[in-house]
Amino acid sequence: MARVSVSNMLHALVELGRHYLDRPTSGGVLPTLVLQCRELVSVHGEASGTALASEIVGAYRALDEDGRLEALRRLNREFATDEETLVEAAKRYASAPGDEAYLGLAAAIEAPRQELFRRLNMAPGGTAAIVEMRQLLLSALRDNPDLKPFERDLKHLLSSWFNRGFLQFERIDWRTPAVILEKLIDYEAVHEIAGWDDLRRRLAEDRRCFGFFHPALPDEPLIFVEVALTNGLAGQVQELLAASPDTPGADKPDTAIFYSISNCQEGLAGISFGNFLIKQVADAVQSELPHITRFATLSPIPGFRRWLDETLVKDTPDFLDDEEIELLQRSGWRDNEVTRQQLKSAVMRLCASYLTQAKRGSRPLDPVARFHLGNGARIERLNWAADLSDRGIEQSAGIMVNYLYDSGEIVSNHEAYVRDGEIATSSAVVKLAAGRS
Amino acid sequence: MARVSVSNMLHALVELGRHYLDRPTSGGVLPTLVLQCRELVSVHGEASGTALASEIVGAYRALDEDGRLEALRRLNREFATDEETLVEAAKRYASAPGDEAYLGLAAAIEAPRQELFRRLNMAPGGTAAIVEMRQLLLSALRDNPDLKPFERDLKHLLSSWFNRGFLQFERIDWRTPAVILEKLIDYEAVHEIAGWDDLRRRLAEDRRCFGFFHPALPDEPLIFVEVALTNGLAGQVQELLAASPDTPGADKPDTAIFYSISNCQEGLAGISFGNFLIKQVADAVQSELPHITRFATLSPIPGFRRWLDETLVKDTPDFLDDEEIELLQRSGWRDNEVTRQQLKSAVMRLCASYLTQAKRGSRPLDPVARFHLGNGARIERLNWAADLSDRGIEQSAGIMVNYLYDSGEIVSNHEAYVRDGEIATSSAVVKLAAGRS
Amino acid sequence: MARVSVSNMLHALVELGRHYLDRPTSGGVLPTLVLQCRELVSVHGEASGTALASEIVGAYRALDEDGRLEALRRLNREFATDEETLVEAAKRYASAPGDEAYLGLAAAIEAPRQELFRRLNMAPGGTAAIVEMRQLLLSALRDNPDLKPFERDLKHLLSSWFNRGFLQFERIDWRTPAVILEKLIDYEAVHEIAGWDDLRRRLAEDRRCFGFFHPALPDEPLIFVEVALTNGLAGQVQELLAASPDTPGADKPDTAIFYSISNCQEGLAGISFGNFLIKQVADAVQSELPHITRFATLSPIPGFRRWLDETLVKDTPDFLDDEEIELLQRSGWRDNEVTRQQLKSAVMRLCASYLTQAKRGSRPLDPVARFHLGNGARIERLNWAADLSDRGIEQSAGIMVNYLYDSGEIVSNHEAYVRDGEIATSSAVVKLAAGRS
Amino acid sequence: MARVSVSNMLHALVELGRHYLDRPTSGGVLPTLVLQCRELVSVHGEASGTALASEIVGAYRALDEDGRLEALRRLNREFATDEETLVEAAKRYASAPGDEAYLGLAAAIEAPRQELFRRLNMAPGGTAAIVEMRQLLLSALRDNPDLKPFERDLKHLLSSWFNRGFLQFERIDWRTPAVILEKLIDYEAVHEIAGWDDLRRRLAEDRRCFGFFHPALPDEPLIFVEVALTNGLAGQVQELLAASPDTPGADKPDTAIFYSISNCQEGLAGISFGNFLIKQVADAVQSELPHITRFATLSPIPGFRRWLDETLVKDTPDFLDDEEIELLQRSGWRDNEVTRQQLKSAVMRLCASYLTQAKRGSRPLDPVARFHLGNGARIERLNWAADLSDRGIEQSAGIMVNYLYDSGEIVSNHEAYVRDGEIATSSAVVKLAAGRS
Repeated sequence: MARVSVSNMLHALVELGRHYLDRPTSGGVLPTLVLQCRELVSVHGEASGTALASEIVGAYRALDEDGRLEALRRLNREFATDEETLVEAAKRYASAPGDEAYLGLAAAIEAPRQELFRRLNMAPGGTAAIVEMRQLLLSALRDNPDLKPFERDLKHLLSSWFNRGFLQFERIDWRTPAVILEKLIDYEAVHEIAGWDDLRRRLAEDRRCFGFFHPALPDEPLIFVEVALTNGLAGQVQELLAASPDTPGADKPDTAIFYSISNCQEGLAGISFGNFLIKQVADAVQSELPHITRFATLSPIPGFRRWLDETLVKDTPDFLDDEEIELLQRSGWRDNEVTRQQLKSAVMRLCASYLTQAKRGSRPLDPVARFHLGNGARIERLNWAADLSDRGIEQSAGIMVNYLYDSGEIVSNHEAYVRDGEIATSSAVVKLAAGRS
Repeated sequence: MARVSVSNMLHALVELGRHYLDRPTSGGVLPTLVLQCRELVSVHGEASGTALASEIVGAYRALDEDGRLEALRRLNREFATDEETLVEAAKRYASAPGDEAYLGLAAAIEAPRQELFRRLNMAPGGTAAIVEMRQLLLSALRDNPDLKPFERDLKHLLSSWFNRGFLQFERIDWRTPAVILEKLIDYEAVHEIAGWDDLRRRLAEDRRCFGFFHPALPDEPLIFVEVALTNGLAGQVQELLAASPDTPGADKPDTAIFYSISNCQEGLAGISFGNFLIKQVADAVQSELPHITRFATLSPIPGFRRWLDETLVKDTPDFLDDEEIELLQRSGWRDNEVTRQQLKSAVMRLCASYLTQAKRGSRPLDPVARFHLGNGARIERLNWAADLSDRGIEQSAGIMVNYLYDSGEIVSNHEAYVRDGEIATSSAVVKLAAGRS
Repeated sequence: MARVSVSNMLHALVELGRHYLDRPTSGGVLPTLVLQCRELVSVHGEASGTALASEIVGAYRALDEDGRLEALRRLNREFATDEETLVEAAKRYASAPGDEAYLGLAAAIEAPRQELFRRLNMAPGGTAAIVEMRQLLLSALRDNPDLKPFERDLKHLLSSWFNRGFLQFERIDWRTPAVILEKLIDYEAVHEIAGWDDLRRRLAEDRRCFGFFHPALPDEPLIFVEVALTNGLAGQVQELLAASPDTPGADKPDTAIFYSISNCQEGLAGISFGNFLIKQVADAVQSELPHITRFATLSPIPGFRRWLDETLVKDTPDFLDDEEIELLQRSGWRDNEVTRQQLKSAVMRLCASYLTQAKRGSRPLDPVARFHLGNGARIERLNWAADLSDRGIEQSAGIMVNYLYDSGEIVSNHEAYVRDGEIATSSAVVKLAAGRS
Repeated sequence: MARVSVSNMLHALVELGRHYLDRPTSGGVLPTLVLQCRELVSVHGEASGTALASEIVGAYRALDEDGRLEALRRLNREFATDEETLVEAAKRYASAPGDEAYLGLAAAIEAPRQELFRRLNMAPGGTAAIVEMRQLLLSALRDNPDLKPFERDLKHLLSSWFNRGFLQFERIDWRTPAVILEKLIDYEAVHEIAGWDDLRRRLAEDRRCFGFFHPALPDEPLIFVEVALTNGLAGQVQELLAASPDTPGADKPDTAIFYSISNCQEGLAGISFGNFLIKQVADAVQSELPHITRFATLSPIPGFRRWLDETLVKDTPDFLDDEEIELLQRSGWRDNEVTRQQLKSAVMRLCASYLTQAKRGSRPLDPVARFHLGNGARIERLNWAADLSDRGIEQSAGIMVNYLYDSGEIVSNHEAYVRDGEIATSSAVVKLAAGRS
C-alpha cells in the first residue's frame, strides 16, 4: 500500500473558498481569514473542507507572530460561546430537565471554535498548526487573560487527539532519520546536547533512547527519555555524559539510568505522557537486556536552593550550627568549592529533609520528586557533587538524586503516595534526613 | 525505529487492579467490571492506566453478546450525567454567568463515561473495542432507548478521534497484506466478492482500489472504493465485474468508474468519510494516469422501486397509459424480462423523474443521489438492464445511473445544490424525465 | 529513501540498440535477438546496457516456449567457448606457466555467455528471466544434451548470485502480501494447500512459516518450511493438517514439527538452501518461544516402496515368513487396509531396515533421509498409518518418520555421518530394525 | 514479515569448528585462521558453514592491519591455484579437447580461494569484510606484487555480486537514517562536506542526492551524486555550495547540475557504477520535476595543470607570446590572482585544447572527461574562476567545465566516441580552442 498525495481535483475545490473570499480580500488578510473560518464551519465547508482548511492554515502560517496572535484574538471573539444562548439553555434545562433540554444545553455550551478546529485539522499539517496555536496562546495568556477559554478548548481537543492509545512508542537510535534526530538536539531540556557528535554518543551501544510519537506528527517526538546502561547506580552526571562508549574494563551493565526526560511540544503542555513513557522504556529495556535488573533515574532537584533560601530566613533547622548558618546565608557559597565541601554534611541533610518533608499541600514541594514519586518510584540515594554544571550548582549545590523504580514496589508506593501522601524513601536517605548517617 | 511491545513492568501494575478487585470478584464478572471502571477513572487509574484498561477490555471481550450488552447497560447507569448536579450548575450559570459558573456547568454536563472511554482507549486494541461497543449500542437502541445518550457520547468521542486529518489514504492491491484483503471480501456492500479469485480480479492492472485507514486500526479499512478503468462510460455492472483483465483489443482507458463504495465499520455509522475518499481517489488516479479524463460512478438506485410503488398508489403520472399502469401494478413485472422490456420507456422516464424530482424536504429522496449530488457530481446517464442481479432487479428494475464528477463543475454544482437544492443533470436525463428523448 | 523507477532518459538509449537492429530485424525475431546480445557484450553495450538488456529480456519473454528454446539454442552456439582458442591457450600455459599464460587461459575458458548473462541481469526482471532460462534448459537437457555446458554456466552464475550471504530469512504469516502468499499455494510440494482457507489455517497462531528470499526476486520465496507447534511428537500428518487452531484442552506446545519443506524455483535446482533454512527456523522459533524444546520433522519416506519391491525380488529378508512374502508380493497390498494391518510389524521392520541400512554408496538410499541425516538429525521414530493420502500409501505404505534435531547432537551426528557414513538412530528404531521391539 | 536473527542453534555448530581448532590454537591465531578456512571449504564446512564463517570473519577483524595483511598472505599461499595440476589439466585438454577435459581444466584453473570467499560470505557482515580485504590487498599490491592474483580473484567475485542488476537506486535526503548520512560526510571526494550543517544544506529543497546501495551493505552507499537545481548553467562552485536555499527572487530552476560524484568503497575500485547512476538520476529528476530541461555537470579538470607543465617544457603552443610563456613557467602563477587574470585568455584556450585534443591513446587524457564523454555527454562550457579552492587552483587554475547531458544526443555522442574517438564539443568551446572566441 502506498500513500498518495492530494493534488489536482482538490485544488479545484479551493475555488469555492476563493469565490466567497475574493470580494472581502480587499478588507485585509485577517478579515479574510475569519470569513474563511466561518465558511469552513458552515455547510459549504463540508464539501470543500480539506482544501479550505489548507488555505486557512497556509494564510495563518504566512503571518508573523503579531499577526497570528491578532488572528487568534479575532477567532476567539468570533467563535466563542454565546452567553445569552447559554443562559437561555441553562434556564430551560433547570426548569425542565430531559433529553431535549440536555441536547440544547450541550449544543449551547460548546464554543463554535471546537468545530472550527476539528475541521481545520483536515488540512495537511493541521494538527501541527493547532499545537503551535496553543503554544502561542499559552505564551500570550499573561497579557491576554481573555484568551484562557480559547486555550482551554484547544487543550480539551488536543487531550482527546493525543490520547495515550494513539501514541507510538519508538526506539530512537543512529538509524533514525536525521529529521527526527535534529529535534533531540533542539528539545533536550535537561542536559544540553552539544551537536551531532554528542548526540551520536548518546545513541551509542551502551545507551538507549525512546520516545512517543503521534501519527499526525511523524517527524516530531512528543517526549523522549535518554537512558545510560551502567554497572551500579550512577551518581555523577558529567562523568556519565562524558564516558567513552568502550571504556576498557567496563563491567557488564546491570542498571538502566534514566538521566534525561524532555517534553518537546510546548503546545501540548499539561497533557502528560511521561509516566507512561518511563514504564514502557523500563519494559523495553528489560525485554531486550534481561541482565539489567535495576531501573533508576539520576535526577536534578530543581527546587532545593529556593526552598533553602526561604528556610534559612524563616525557621532555621536546629541541627545547623552558627557557622553553618552564616556560611549558608552568604551568597555564593555554592560557587566556592571549599565552602561547599565544608558544608557538605549539613547541606546533604538539608536536601534529604527537603525531598522527604517539604510539601505543597499533601504533595512534595519538588516538581521532579512529585513526578517520580507519583509514578511509584522511591527516593534511593542523594549524590554529592553530582552535577557540577552552572545550573546544577545554582539549583541544588550540585546534588542529584536517584529515584529507584522497583517493580515489586511500584504499586504499593504509588498507592500509599496517592492515599496518604507517603513518600517512599530508602533507609539511607531516611537516616540522612534524621542526621543519623 | 522499532515499536516495542509492552509487557513485564506494566504487568506488575495489573496487581493494583487485582488488589482492589480480588474481594468483589465473588460478586460476579459484571460488578467487577464496573468496579474496575470506577478504579480506572479514579486517581489510582492514572498510574496503572494502561494495565487496568487492558484488563477491562479483556474482561469485556470475554463476555458473550448478552453479557456485553448488560455490561454496557450497567456502565450507562453508573457513568451517566448526574441530573441533580447539572440542574444545580445550570441554575448557577443562569443566575450569574461567568467563567467559574461556565466551568462548573461544563464539568456537570459531560457524562463521566466520556473520561472512562478516553482511558479505556489506552488499552492495546482499545479503540477497536470502543468502535465495537458503539456498534452493539446502535443495534440495541430500538429495544433500549435509554442507551441513546451513551451511544451519542461514543459517537462524539469517535468523531473526534476519526477526524479526517488522522485518516490515512492507502492504495489497496495484490501486494497488500492478506489480513487486510480478507476484510474487503467481508465488507464489500454493493457487489459481493466471491472469494479470493474474484478479489484478485478486482485488484488487477485495469482496476484500482483505495481506502481510508486509521493508525489505531491498522488492519481495518474504514471505507474503500473500487474503481474500474474503462474505455467510455460503463453502463452494465455484470459485464464490468466479469470482464477479463486482458481482453484483447481493449482500447486505452479514458474513464475511471467508481463502481462500489463500502463503509466497513458499523460502529462508525454517521461519521462520514465517503466524500473525502472519492475526491482523493479521483486525484490519485489522475496523477498516476493522466490519460484518464472522466470520473464517474455506476451506481444503484436503491429507493426507486419503493417510490414507484407509492407513486402508483397515490397519483399516477399522466404520461402512463392504462396498460402501463396495469402492468406496473402487477407484482412481479420486474422479474419478467418481457414485461420489463415492454415497460422500458415508461420506467426509464419514471426513474429519471424519481432521481431529479422526488425529494425529501429540499433534498433528493434517493440516498445515493443525495451522497453524490452533495459532493458536486451530476446525474449523467441512466442505463437500462444495467444490474441484473436479484437485488438490482428488486430495487430499481435493473436500472443504474452514472454520476459524473467533472472537476470544472464540482464547485458550482455543490454550491447550487446546497444553496438552492438544485440537482445537476445532463440534458439527456432532463429530456428523459420530460419524455422528450 | 524512495526507490525511483527508470524511464525517460534510459529510453533514449534504446535507440542505440534500434539503430543497430533496424536493419536485421527483417531477418526475424531470433536473429535480431542474437544481434542484440552481441551488441550487449560489445563495448557499445556498456553505455546503453540497462536499456538494451531490457529490450532483449522483453523480446525473449514475448516468445512462446518453442521460440525460447530455439533462442537458447542459438545463444548456446553463438556464445560458447571457442575450442581452438582454448586449445591454443592450454598449450601455451602447459609449455610456459606464468601469470600471463594463466590470464590467457582464464579468458579462453570462460564462455562468452557468462558475460552476456551478467549484462542481461541489468534489465529490470533480469534475474528472474535468467532463473527461468535455466529452468527451461534443465527441462530440455534430455533431448538437447549439447545444452549441458550452457546450463552449467548458468548454474555457476546463479550459485554465485544466490550465495547464502545474500538470502533474506523472513517470517511468512497472514500479514504477508497476497502476492507472496499465493506462491505458497502454487509451490507447496509435500502436502498440497487446498486454497486460501487452508493456507490461512497453515499460518494460524499455532503454526509458523519461514522462507528465504533474494533481493532481486522480492515476491518469490526460494524455499519455505511449514512448522506446526504441537504437544508431543506428531505422528499423523492428516490429523496435523486438519487440527483446528483452537482445539479446546490443547496443552501448551513443547515441540516444533517441520512438516513440509518446499523448494520453489526449479531454475535454482542444485543450489541448496534447505539445510541453512532448517537451522535458522529452529533458532527463530526457539528465540520467540523458549518453551519449545524439541525440533523434529514429520517426513515422507519416498523411496521405501521401490526399494521394497526390488528387495522382495532379489533377496528376501530372513525374518519374513512365507505368508508375509506372498502378501507383500501381491500388488495392491498397500491399498487394502486389512492386509496392511496384517503386515504392520513386518513392514515397519522392513522400513526401519530401509532407512538405517539401505545405501547408495556410503550414503542412505532415501533422499529425504540423506538430507536430514546430512544436517545432523537422527532417525527418531517410525509412525504407522501416518500419511493415508494416495501418495503416502503409494510411496511408503502410509509410514512416516520423525527426524529429530537435537542441538546437543547435531555436530557429532553430522561429523560421524560425513566421516564414517554413520546414521544416527534412536534405540527404538535400532530395535525395530533388529526385530527386538 | 520480519527478519529474524540467528543465534542459539547455530551457536551449537560453532562447536564443530572449535572441536577441530582447539588443538592447533596453541600454534597462534593465524595458523588457526588458516585451519578454519580449510575446514570451511571442506565437506564439514557445509553443515556448520554460517557459524564457522562468522568465527573466521570475527577472528580476522580482531587482527590489526599488519595481522590482517599477514593473514591474507597466508591465505594467498594456501588457497592458490596449483600450477602442477593446472599444467596437467591443460595438457590433457590440449591433447584431447572435450567436455570432461574441459571440466577438469575449469576445476584446476579456479583458485580454491574463490570457493573459500563464497563461503565466507555466509557470515553476517561477510560481504563487507570481503570488500575490506580487497581494499587492503589493493593498498598492499605495490609492496606485495604476488598478491595480484588474489586481488584479481576478489575483484572477479565482487564484480559478480555487485552486478548492476542488484544495486538499489535510492534518494538520500534529510529523512535518511543518520548512519547513512554520516557516510556522505566521510566519503565526499570532490567538495568536502564541512559537518552536519553543510550536509543539511546539500540536502535542502533545491538539491537532490541519490546513491546506489547493495542489499548486503544496507548502511553503505556505493556511490552517490549531488545535484543542485539552478536557473541557468552554474559556473562557480563556491557560490553554488554557499547559496542559501531560499535566496529571495530565485527563479524557478530549469537545470540540474551534477556537482559531485563520489565512489565510496575503495574495495570496489574498478567496478564501475557511475555511468548507470548519472542516467538514473537524470531520469528521476526529470520525472519528479518536469520543468527541469537541462542536465549538466560542473566538473573539475584534474589533469590540466600537469599536462600544461609538460606541454610548456616539450612544445609550447604557437599562440602563446613570450611574456605568457615566461609567466606560465614561473611557479606560482596560479596562486597570484593578478597574474592569473593576465593569463586568462591564454589559459582558457590552453584548457580548451587540453580537453578536446590531449589524448592517451584514442581517449581524452583527462579522466573526468573520459568518464562523461564515454557516457555520451558533450563539453559545453569552460568557466573561469570557477573553483577557487586550493585544490581547484592547483589542478586547473580555477577553471571548471560543464559537461552537458542532452538526451537527444547521448546515443550519437557515445557512438561516435566509441567508434571514432570523437569528442562532442559545443561550438563555443571549439572556437575557444581555436582562438576564435
